[in-house]
Amino acid sequence: MKVEETGKKQGDMEEEKIIKWLKSHCLPERTEVKTGIGDDTAVIDFNSTSYLLLTTDAVVENVHFKINDASFYQIGWKALGVNISDIAAMGGSPLWALVSIGMPKKIVSAYKKLYKGILDMSKLFHVDIIGGNLSRSEILFVDIFLAGTVKKKNLVLRSTAKPGDILFVTGSLGGSQKRKQFTFIPRVREAQAIISRVKPSAMIDLSDGLAADARKLAEASGCGFEIAISKIPVSQDACEKDKIVSALYDGEDYELLLAIPPESVRSLPTIVNGIPVTEIGRLTKKKTFVLKHTNGSTNKISKEKFRHFE
Amino acid sequence: MKVEETGKKQGDMEEEKIIKWLKSHCLPERTEVKTGIGDDTAVIDFNSTSYLLLTTDAVVENVHFKINDASFYQIGWKALGVNISDIAAMGGSPLWALVSIGMPKKIVSAYKKLYKGILDMSKLFHVDIIGGNLSRSEILFVDIFLAGTVKKKNLVLRSTAKPGDILFVTGSLGGSQKRKQFTFIPRVREAQAIISRVKPSAMIDLSDGLAADARKLAEASGCGFEIAISKIPVSQDACEKDKIVSALYDGEDYELLLAIPPESVRSLPTIVNGIPVTEIGRLTKKKTFVLKHTNGSTNKISKEKFRHFE
Repeated sequence: MKVEETGKKQGDMEEEKIIKWLKSHCLPERTEVKTGIGDDTAVIDFNSTSYLLLTTDAVVENVHFKINDASFYQIGWKALGVNISDIAAMGGSPLWALVSIGMPKKIVSAYKKLYKGILDMSKLFHVDIIGGNLSRSEILFVDIFLAGTVKKKNLVLRSTAKPGDILFVTGSLGGSQKRKQFTFIPRVREAQAIISRVKPSAMIDLSDGLAADARKLAEASGCGFEIAISKIPVSQDACEKDKIVSALYDGEDYELLLAIPPESVRSLPTIVNGIPVTEIGRLTKKKTFVLKHTNGSTNKISKEKFRHFE
Repeated sequence: MKVEETGKKQGDMEEEKIIKWLKSHCLPERTEVKTGIGDDTAVIDFNSTSYLLLTTDAVVENVHFKINDASFYQIGWKALGVNISDIAAMGGSPLWALVSIGMPKKIVSAYKKLYKGILDMSKLFHVDIIGGNLSRSEILFVDIFLAGTVKKKNLVLRSTAKPGDILFVTGSLGGSQKRKQFTFIPRVREAQAIISRVKPSAMIDLSDGLAADARKLAEASGCGFEIAISKIPVSQDACEKDKIVSALYDGEDYELLLAIPPESVRSLPTIVNGIPVTEIGRLTKKKTFVLKHTNGSTNKISKEKFRHFE
């Protein structure tokens, strides 16, 4: 469950209040629902060997993209990609998608270009488009529902890390709005390759930015974190003005943040499928969110000012 | 897969062209996909006894409702109800829903009322809300993804009827925009009660109006139809000016249209859970769509003028 862009800053009290309300009003009744609201995907007890993973994410005109800044192909690519990234973060394989599109009358003929982006992404991971909608709407939105599966022993939640676990991140971060948000390849294969070597104690995909997503993983696991700024792998696209701020807060990276128990760190590969896996910090017992500067000073990030790097 | 309200009249060539394009470009690769685009839900070979049913339907401001004509509670109720109705039409049971909402900033505090409608509908059928999104958007849309299951032997498609099969409809039709579109109870229990007595050869839920949906069932099954106007059960809400036109074309009834092999008709109950099940016509070998008037005259409805009663 994501609550975003509802008019106030991410991580503020309004968003938290909504999530809390939703969680308390949507408590699952059914025994086969292993995880409902609160992780990258819902987890359903599917059969004796696999869980069913269900997720949805929407991209909305003037919120997630401007019609003049992105091609229809890119919008389609991203719309499916962000959902596949959620399945990747659980250690799973994406399988079947339903595509719900709202489109203004005057651009309806662009559905083929939009679908071309969706289909090209789907083919990368052998995802079938099995249904959906095309409805009139005053703004363009693409809302995708994706189902996947994960072998029970390979499921990784975001809530099961422990203090002392080491934090790693795949790829590099920052400036992804420039290009990567429309070209990224979700880390499905990388997640599975890592799990086959070392099972992370927790995992989350980086959609809202390292700072916000690390906090989500830490809070779900009942921990705090300490991240060493000098260790963060910064993308060449990161904003020149302040690359670290860019890597921490830009979002849209669609990389993975992993927590690895300290005793397993030596088995973790440093490169997977050509993608670096970089140690950046650790989870702490103390529930504070700390950034360590190279000069030894630290910042504690308060909830209210989470988006601000001070 | 539904294509609707894209700016031209339903049933016209533009809509058909889009559906045809989507079907041909989204051919399932995976062997477990039994039915992809083209029925009320997708059908996945789930395990040895049950199929997994997956569907999505969106309600969009200024297309499916006006913000001043419907309460948030009603919009929520309908948004989940239309999806449950799709599962009902396959003979299945709804289980887990993901709720994707786009909301303008100025009405975001109404999410509780919207959710109250969704949750009240979900409780009627023991559906769990297991995830979703709340995103900013310039218009309100509620897009729901619903998963369910059906015992393999109970699955009813829309494409498996035969010429000569008799058409029945549950409840009464027409004028549903007035009230019923926001208060209807999807016919899950009625469908299951019917299947336990007689398995229909095909079934579809009535969302676009009897004329359009009967055509969909007939075309998917490679048939035509003949409907006796005098037999159509007309709702007391149907438009006084022309009740039959209202019952044929208004839509939003969320009743079921069933095809029953002639030899099984005697086993079909005439009332299920207090809801009448009414014979209205039959499927024909000739692929025309015929309305029989009480005076014996008939209308053939051409594809191009399908929405018009002449």
